[in-house]
Amino acid sequence: MKELLEQVKSGEIDIDRAIERLRHLPFEDLGFACIDHHRQIRRGFPEVIYCPGKTTEQVVKIFSNLAEKGNNVLATRADKEVFDALAETKKFPQARYEESARAIVLEQKKITPSKSVIPIVTAGTADLPVAAEAKVTAEIMGQRTELICDVGVAGLHRLLGHVAKLQTANVIIVIAGMEGALASVVGGLVSCPVIAVPTSIGSGASFAGLSALLTMLNSCAAGVAVVNIDNGFGAGVTASLINKKIEANK
Amino acid sequence: MKELLEQVKSGEIDIDRAIERLRHLPFEDLGFACIDHHRQIRRGFPEVIYCPGKTTEQVVKIFSNLAEKGNNVLATRADKEVFDALAETKKFPQARYEESARAIVLEQKKITPSKSVIPIVTAGTADLPVAAEAKVTAEIMGQRTELICDVGVAGLHRLLGHVAKLQTANVIIVIAGMEGALASVVGGLVSCPVIAVPTSIGSGASFAGLSALLTMLNSCAAGVAVVNIDNGFGAGVTASLINKKIEANK
Amino acid sequence: MKELLEQVKSGEIDIDRAIERLRHLPFEDLGFACIDHHRQIRRGFPEVIYCPGKTTEQVVKIFSNLAEKGNNVLATRADKEVFDALAETKKFPQARYEESARAIVLEQKKITPSKSVIPIVTAGTADLPVAAEAKVTAEIMGQRTELICDVGVAGLHRLLGHVAKLQTANVIIVIAGMEGALASVVGGLVSCPVIAVPTSIGSGASFAGLSALLTMLNSCAAGVAVVNIDNGFGAGVTASLINKKIEANK
Amino acid sequence: MKELLEQVKSGEIDIDRAIERLRHLPFEDLGFACIDHHRQIRRGFPEVIYCPGKTTEQVVKIFSNLAEKGNNVLATRADKEVFDALAETKKFPQARYEESARAIVLEQKKITPSKSVIPIVTAGTADLPVAAEAKVTAEIMGQRTELICDVGVAGLHRLLGHVAKLQTANVIIVIAGMEGALASVVGGLVSCPVIAVPTSIGSGASFAGLSALLTMLNSCAAGVAVVNIDNGFGAGVTASLINKKIEANK
Amino acid sequence: MKELLEQVKSGEIDIDRAIERLRHLPFEDLGFACIDHHRQIRRGFPEVIYCPGKTTEQVVKIFSNLAEKGNNVLATRADKEVFDALAETKKFPQARYEESARAIVLEQKKITPSKSVIPIVTAGTADLPVAAEAKVTAEIMGQRTELICDVGVAGLHRLLGHVAKLQTANVIIVIAGMEGALASVVGGLVSCPVIAVPTSIGSGASFAGLSALLTMLNSCAAGVAVVNIDNGFGAGVTASLINKKIEANK
Amino acid sequence: MKELLEQVKSGEIDIDRAIERLRHLPFEDLGFACIDHHRQIRRGFPEVIYCPGKTTEQVVKIFSNLAEKGNNVLATRADKEVFDALAETKKFPQARYEESARAIVLEQKKITPSKSVIPIVTAGTADLPVAAEAKVTAEIMGQRTELICDVGVAGLHRLLGHVAKLQTANVIIVIAGMEGALASVVGGLVSCPVIAVPTSIGSGASFAGLSALLTMLNSCAAGVAVVNIDNGFGAGVTASLINKKIEANK
Amino acid sequence: MKELLEQVKSGEIDIDRAIERLRHLPFEDLGFACIDHHRQIRRGFPEVIYCPGKTTEQVVKIFSNLAEKGNNVLATRADKEVFDALAETKKFPQARYEESARAIVLEQKKITPSKSVIPIVTAGTADLPVAAEAKVTAEIMGQRTELICDVGVAGLHRLLGHVAKLQTANVIIVIAGMEGALASVVGGLVSCPVIAVPTSIGSGASFAGLSALLTMLNSCAAGVAVVNIDNGFGAGVTASLINKKIEANK
Amino acid sequence: MKELLEQVKSGEIDIDRAIERLRHLPFEDLGFACIDHHRQIRRGFPEVIYCPGKTTEQVVKIFSNLAEKGNNVLATRADKEVFDALAETKKFPQARYEESARAIVLEQKKITPSKSVIPIVTAGTADLPVAAEAKVTAEIMGQRTELICDVGVAGLHRLLGHVAKLQTANVIIVIAGMEGALASVVGGLVSCPVIAVPTSIGSGASFAGLSALLTMLNSCAAGVAVVNIDNGFGAGVTASLINKKIEANK
Repeated sequence: MKELLEQVKSGEIDIDRAIERLRHLPFEDLGFACIDHHRQIRRGFPEVIYCPGKTTEQVVKIFSNLAEKGNNVLATRADKEVFDALAETKKFPQARYEESARAIVLEQKKITPSKSVIPIVTAGTADLPVAAEAKVTAEIMGQRTELICDVGVAGLHRLLGHVAKLQTANVIIVIAGMEGALASVVGGLVSCPVIAVPTSIGSGASFAGLSALLTMLNSCAAGVAVVNIDNGFGAGVTASLINKKIEANK
Repeated sequence: MKELLEQVKSGEIDIDRAIERLRHLPFEDLGFACIDHHRQIRRGFPEVIYCPGKTTEQVVKIFSNLAEKGNNVLATRADKEVFDALAETKKFPQARYEESARAIVLEQKKITPSKSVIPIVTAGTADLPVAAEAKVTAEIMGQRTELICDVGVAGLHRLLGHVAKLQTANVIIVIAGMEGALASVVGGLVSCPVIAVPTSIGSGASFAGLSALLTMLNSCAAGVAVVNIDNGFGAGVTASLINKKIEANK
Repeated sequence: MKELLEQVKSGEIDIDRAIERLRHLPFEDLGFACIDHHRQIRRGFPEVIYCPGKTTEQVVKIFSNLAEKGNNVLATRADKEVFDALAETKKFPQARYEESARAIVLEQKKITPSKSVIPIVTAGTADLPVAAEAKVTAEIMGQRTELICDVGVAGLHRLLGHVAKLQTANVIIVIAGMEGALASVVGGLVSCPVIAVPTSIGSGASFAGLSALLTMLNSCAAGVAVVNIDNGFGAGVTASLINKKIEANK
Repeated sequence: MKELLEQVKSGEIDIDRAIERLRHLPFEDLGFACIDHHRQIRRGFPEVIYCPGKTTEQVVKIFSNLAEKGNNVLATRADKEVFDALAETKKFPQARYEESARAIVLEQKKITPSKSVIPIVTAGTADLPVAAEAKVTAEIMGQRTELICDVGVAGLHRLLGHVAKLQTANVIIVIAGMEGALASVVGGLVSCPVIAVPTSIGSGASFAGLSALLTMLNSCAAGVAVVNIDNGFGAGVTASLINKKIEANK
Repeated sequence: MKELLEQVKSGEIDIDRAIERLRHLPFEDLGFACIDHHRQIRRGFPEVIYCPGKTTEQVVKIFSNLAEKGNNVLATRADKEVFDALAETKKFPQARYEESARAIVLEQKKITPSKSVIPIVTAGTADLPVAAEAKVTAEIMGQRTELICDVGVAGLHRLLGHVAKLQTANVIIVIAGMEGALASVVGGLVSCPVIAVPTSIGSGASFAGLSALLTMLNSCAAGVAVVNIDNGFGAGVTASLINKKIEANK
Repeated sequence: MKELLEQVKSGEIDIDRAIERLRHLPFEDLGFACIDHHRQIRRGFPEVIYCPGKTTEQVVKIFSNLAEKGNNVLATRADKEVFDALAETKKFPQARYEESARAIVLEQKKITPSKSVIPIVTAGTADLPVAAEAKVTAEIMGQRTELICDVGVAGLHRLLGHVAKLQTANVIIVIAGMEGALASVVGGLVSCPVIAVPTSIGSGASFAGLSALLTMLNSCAAGVAVVNIDNGFGAGVTASLINKKIEANK
Repeated sequence: MKELLEQVKSGEIDIDRAIERLRHLPFEDLGFACIDHHRQIRRGFPEVIYCPGKTTEQVVKIFSNLAEKGNNVLATRADKEVFDALAETKKFPQARYEESARAIVLEQKKITPSKSVIPIVTAGTADLPVAAEAKVTAEIMGQRTELICDVGVAGLHRLLGHVAKLQTANVIIVIAGMEGALASVVGGLVSCPVIAVPTSIGSGASFAGLSALLTMLNSCAAGVAVVNIDNGFGAGVTASLINKKIEANK
Repeated sequence: MKELLEQVKSGEIDIDRAIERLRHLPFEDLGFACIDHHRQIRRGFPEVIYCPGKTTEQVVKIFSNLAEKGNNVLATRADKEVFDALAETKKFPQARYEESARAIVLEQKKITPSKSVIPIVTAGTADLPVAAEAKVTAEIMGQRTELICDVGVAGLHRLLGHVAKLQTANVIIVIAGMEGALASVVGGLVSCPVIAVPTSIGSGASFAGLSALLTMLNSCAAGVAVVNIDNGFGAGVTASLINKKIEANK
């Protein structure tokens, strides 16, 4: 806003156009959705659609609107049917469906990959879909990733084989369900921030991820910050923002 | 009861005395408390008084009743005032107050110490009172113990120095608050049962021990069984029963 | 690790091989799973696969990898479809599906049965699937078991008929849903440790097993340790580890 | 209301007085409290004041208002200071303070005691204050009671000695904290209704009585109905209403 | 047990037969279920089967076993398929399926109906299935019932039309979901005990009946006791036990 | 009731008819439902049926009963099948099904639209079904509404474009899931009351709307009152009652 | 902002001053607090300080800052010590301490009282402090109020005496703890919006107000909106905003 | 460990010394605490003592041990008495007590301040103690900070004045209680990661910080990661690790 006021002051744009811009430009109202085209610039994000609760028709319309402007687009938690409906439009042949991540990915703008690699570490095989969502998110934000899978604390030596790699990372994503202890153990071994993702993997008193969530929030290893249960997307974004800041600083 | 019926049948005791025994012998009714003298024989336990909710006067009366029969007595969660009131009676000069454990201990019968040692492992210094309760309990049940303190998962190497010792134990007590991850890590390293005690150490989303409790219940390392939050006594009893069975089998 | 360092020191193995072993031997990385072959030696466990969250394809691959090494293998919480997919490979004709336990069992190595029997006691008929999982787990770990079914506290005399048997056991598994009171009652009658399994049987305020879980954690009978809701596997492992220690001690 | 309308119809009272009665008679408005004198007739209750949240001054005023009409009055959860303030007024020298129950009791009208006795059974000594509240409530409602104390399920034989007595009761109050299993066990042994009171006795995962509450709600023994945690008053009222109905029927 | 001991003492039966009876008679072990035939005598109950968690085959076997002894049998929470499987056996043509209550009812022994009627009051139409379960339960226990439906507190006048009827009852069952306020309102209008059943009717913050459950437990009207969420059966049993005691006393 | 008594007094109606009216007129008992025709007059509501838990047959009967009296009728949370069953009766051809709102709407009486407009603001596209329920409810209560969709706090500028419109409203409905922060932000910008509706949109730690519910209850912006999770109907009614009072006052 | 831009456009103020205003005017930064002087204009509120978590020194400074501008000031949840510290400054002799409401009130600007009266209805005497906070809040916002105290649902006739008064109100505040049923009952009797305040009055399963909160959120009477537990202030503000809109409309 | 093995291999150190190092060097066992001197090197942390649950004597001993090695030391959640006890030893005259943060700080080694500044933003004045803990933590880790206080969402313009500053930050700490909405709003405005700290400020349904915690976990603005309730220390560490990585990269 301040910038806008200064442009007005300098005569660069006149008041009428300024008011117009402020009110109409930064987003587009589809009636059922209010698309924030400005976010890509403001936050360095790709265009993202979180699908649950939206009808297939709504997702396809929003996706099309975003894609037609030439942007990269990511649709998360998308059922296969949603992708099929999009594919039927034949408008975005480059769009692909990542089954494990349940994501639709459209890369139209070239992405320059990061120099460093973000390790994505999971406690078990069943945490893979969440890891896949984190991976696809980080990659569309220009980050290279490496998946280190099924190295939970019940067999510590599996993790220890990867310690050297973890200790050179800028930021690490740790994904675990059940008791979620892996985040604390990794956090205790490294000097970079750890983004922890509790998953709903487990049964009974795991209470659909509550157990792992509380574990991670109470981590005795400082430097561990937590995102929502199963929120691979959120972890991917946060880790990407951190790594982008680091590499941008060179 | 079956034994009693068989004694009746064999003529060892007559019916009247049998009924009398069944109704009056195995416990003693103080009005406000019903003392189960039989438990010591039946379960191999010392006489134990759980103090919370009892008045000082009640604890002193129950303690006296138990102690006068020559047994070893343990009073848990006892405030210092309770011990002072007991000490004032001058009846049990051998009774001592364990401050950290908040326990009153009276050893009147000689206890033969176990051959093997039960390791009691804590994640942090603040878990010590719970460990002290477990220790005092195990010891009055005839078990030798060794305290391994402050070896939480944020600095794994502190634990790894003790692995050899842990791997030779018959049973291990693991005590941890906050995220309680230590139980899983220890459980993954050994082949004996682990009795896990969540503690209320922590703040915020530890929810007074709920976090550690859920962690331990969801342990990805099998062989971990859990007792109530801060229940050092329960862990001490369970581990002692296990080790007694093992040593008894020789 | 310490052993390895000492082998190195004694010249038994050279440094290169030691590093190699440390990094590559104890587990095998399938990409989506990191198989811990070492656990069988380290913890005395069979190879176990917890199926939820893994795709059928993943389970079959992990199962095959484990089985091909000649081990006994247990897959828990396996849908019938998973077993069918495994059967179609025709590689392990000895593998069988335990329907009530929802487990796939492959016994390739001979198991010497334990001398003593572990009683598995359930409060109701509906607790049977959890009991079946405990049973199948204990048996593949070499334990003999006896199922005592539907003896909940609403009809105490059903339980009392089994007291003599329970009082001679080394360890008992008690399985109950609803209010889960059976664990306390059994715990009060015996002098061995009791492994309690809350089940999700019940409705309304049983909150999918929370009620039974809290009951068991708050047991007024000491010597009761608890595993996760419906975790027959965990109870089977813990009880087996205890009984193995006891019988090993002879 | 219907009665009133019929009195109007029959000419017994005129409309003006009927409206007057309806609006002013059945209660008395002290500004801060609206005293329901009608309840004693309507529900067969003594006048009762629940003290928490009321200032000492308010309790004394309400108590005085009720007592001056010659009724029996019960004030529950009253601190000793409240009684002292009441005693200082010197208006009700017969009023007494029941310390364990934390109740003020004033018996001005003669109470005819019931023929049968209501057993009040507690699992532990620490449940006594709740039992005392139930007892004082039942007694001012004209019921004879018998306290059976400290017969929790960890030592079943203590309870079994009282079974005959329980089996002849019209209604039983069972009070238990921790895991609260006593209600189910008693419920399974008798053919009369059981009013169960969970108490906040316990620690950790008893969650201030939640554990015992859930246990009792999930009782596998039918015929068990539950009142609020520590609500000895509610149990006393409910059991009294039941027994009054039974004895009234003769 | 005491009776048995006394029969032994009086020479009525000999010891061998007494032991035999104690162990074998009062229940029958089907392997997967332990049928408590004694309960019908001990508690005045019909034979009851709670179906959830039992296979259709198990229910049919238990039902047959109970029914073949000529008893009345009630199976609750039974799917229609279970009844169909039972009907296919053609052994109990009198058995009927109560669809709303989801109960199978077999009346083989003549039931003498109670003199008085138990009102079953529901807050809404959606509470009817729970009311139906209470009704069918009370009726097989010999109680006459009257359904007063959809009189929740949002339209008080609907309830007020029934007050006279409620005020003459011996015991009332009140069934309500959502905020469950009806139990307090009814409780404040009558002088008999109220058995309150919270239901899972509602959405959002009703949390599947938790809201109504808490409301009823916290009722400001004393004399209200609560059973589990949706537990029409439990309310039916408790109310029947109370009314049977009352009518038996005449 | 008071009015009735006064009519009696004035001789306008006689006592017999008064009693009759009191008991029979204001509602109609269908056996399974007790229809409160009086509510429309007493509360200014349309006739409303909340469908969950009612059978299709019951809904159709209640709907028909209400509609036949010529009223406007709203059935909420109605599945399409329910509408189809109603349509098959061919009795109310004007009835329409609002798919997004899952509501059946029958407007038979003319509704005079309000002068002012109630803004219904949603944080996301997925909150639309709840908004649709609020809209349909407000409209059948005679309110004009305007939907402002997908203006959640992650892109504040989308909301800011609507501030002028919001600041002139009499009352605003704000609907948000996930973290539900929109209610506080809107509340801070306007001087009218805000009715906040948390929705179950979200995943993991949104706990089916609990997160948004707590957020809204804890709003740091005063003037925000909250209805149940997903309760578009409740918000529609409350906002309509407010706006009707305001416009009525002119 | 829009207004500001338009003032700029019209030449009323120049750009520099506009930027200055935007950044500095509407609030004042005390370092530890950022005082929003603009809110009084924007939202029609008095200046309000929520005291918990602020030091006495901070409250006194903020209060002084606000009061020195001549505004009316309200400090809620203020301990007596805070008022004493303020009184010691001798700067605001008109400030008074409302003990029951725990509020400091300073009326410097004349308040024109509303024409209509807002009824504040409480279920019990113990709810008075919350009612007092609502009252003091509404009054400083220019509303007349009437307290109707202790008319909970256990004695419905106490409430019915006030129905006529409630039916003429524009908006009603209902305050109740324990089971909180009063809000539904009042909601069912009137045609104006009801602002419901759950209180923490109660014990055991009232869970510090959770029970009443859930009750009110699940109210079967539409038109009931809820504020936070014990939030008399929030209810006072919301009801005042509604009534101001209504009276403003004349 | 790997490094150690390689040093062994290269002959740099012999096996005996390697084992010695591995076991004894990286930590120091005080009996009640196991001090991890290695963490400072491994994780780039200062020495930190979390005081709750430790006795004053224990904290003083641990602090002394750490401080005597010349390190900077931070003790969090320290009561003033702990600092006084430390001060009495007169060993560390430079140690100071930060009252708001409840921290003891000892800077012995010179800290080079960061180039960039970490904004610490709070929603209210009452959040200041948590902000102070974050600030003191970040500063002893070499970070410059700027406190932006009391800019909660109820008065958005207070925050908007700081947007430019926030948009140039590398990482931001956002601290909020009550509904915690500030994290989402800030997250939506910037392109750097946001570390969100829920606080226990609030009352009633804030449930001691649970409300703000859930809000932040469910943030609709991606790039927000969360630490435990009131965990200013954790946020300080995480933000510092991120900023150190960024500045280190230059």
